Amino acid sequence: MANKAVILLSGGLDSATTLAMARRDGYDCYCLSLDYGQRHRAELDAAAKIALSLGAAAHRVLQLDLTTFGGSALTDPSLAVPMATHSGGNDIPITYVPARNTIMLSLALAWSEVLKATDIFIGANAVDYSGYPDCRPEFIDAFEKLANLATKAAVEGAHCRIHAPLINLSKAQIIQQGQALNVDYALTVSCYQADAAGRGCGQCDSCQLRQQGFSAAGIPDPTRYR
Amino acid sequence: MANKAVILLSGGLDSATTLAMARRDGYDCYCLSLDYGQRHRAELDAAAKIALSLGAAAHRVLQLDLTTFGGSALTDPSLAVPMATHSGGNDIPITYVPARNTIMLSLALAWSEVLKATDIFIGANAVDYSGYPDCRPEFIDAFEKLANLATKAAVEGAHCRIHAPLINLSKAQIIQQGQALNVDYALTVSCYQADAAGRGCGQCDSCQLRQQGFSAAGIPDPTRYR
Repeated sequence: MANKAVILLSGGLDSATTLAMARRDGYDCYCLSLDYGQRHRAELDAAAKIALSLGAAAHRVLQLDLTTFGGSALTDPSLAVPMATHSGGNDIPITYVPARNTIMLSLALAWSEVLKATDIFIGANAVDYSGYPDCRPEFIDAFEKLANLATKAAVEGAHCRIHAPLINLSKAQIIQQGQALNVDYALTVSCYQADAAGRGCGQCDSCQLRQQGFSAAGIPDPTRYR
Repeated sequence: MANKAVILLSGGLDSATTLAMARRDGYDCYCLSLDYGQRHRAELDAAAKIALSLGAAAHRVLQLDLTTFGGSALTDPSLAVPMATHSGGNDIPITYVPARNTIMLSLALAWSEVLKATDIFIGANAVDYSGYPDCRPEFIDAFEKLANLATKAAVEGAHCRIHAPLINLSKAQIIQQGQALNVDYALTVSCYQADAAGRGCGQCDSCQLRQQGFSAAGIPDPTRYR
């Protein structure tokens, strides 16, 4: 029987590639998406299609209304999503959702313990990213240390591993590896403000990073824009 | 203006005492409770009364349905709550909720960042407790390290502190300190299976620890039992 792993699956390009890598490595994949009050449901619909297309063992969507806290353009309707403000500088954009990856990994940790899985995959990326602090290698390492103190499973000797296989890849490298693993990128939604059909705006940070990635990879961009 | 702090408030004895200590230390207290599908609502009702009685600045209840994962007698109706199995041994009881404190602290971290607060209080206790791994000092320390890598606030220089003021206190000492701070313990609910009015069973681990604490403190137990 294959080992089980929990995969954080947003519906975007990075997490879809991460799922394909976990499948390649032989894991039975339990995919977790968070309905945290993001601006559109298209990425959750995309996550379900991606999980199915890549042979996940299960896909679960957890409701957690982070709009209770606000503080991000992705969770507060009164804040506008910025257009292509990503400059490679040090400013963290307003699309940053406070503590999102910490929350997501905590929930993955809970599910993994119930499943008796010790492997968790997250599509965090520290190269072509939006400057989010919780995508850095030192953050992933610190979470793994925490996970190995936090659970009954850890006390009983299980060793939890947090896999971030994209962490040092460029967007172009991610796309090339995913293409080799037959990821259908037409299913993925990266846009911060996709429409109900999952079509991107082509203008926001996330759309721009995606377009540049396909261009640099020399692979036609299958993204549907409106 | 006083500093803001986020206080994890379950409605039990420990977190009520923790809130009273944070108030004593001069913080404006933003209390966070989690409605995670626990067996009864009485402890959430208790949390609201405690927040009011101790002068909290705000109290928010976040919905997060951990019954999606199950794996605990507190979140899976098919598992029975054990009666006074706490033996001081190494076994972690079935009332352990996978990764609960990791999840709670992650949510507190998110809210603290939105509030521009850098202090988080949790009533974790490593002395008279139920053997939960995520109540140990090394867990709290690891979360603080994580928190200081996880957020935009941390990148910008804020230092997050996780306060666990009960961590080395006996249950009797907790009760004595809370009594001195005018905590109304009649409002608090410790029982794993309290009735709708908040009355305890008097039999479960949590009730037993509480009774022993009042007895050792030499303070009459105001708990309402059914």
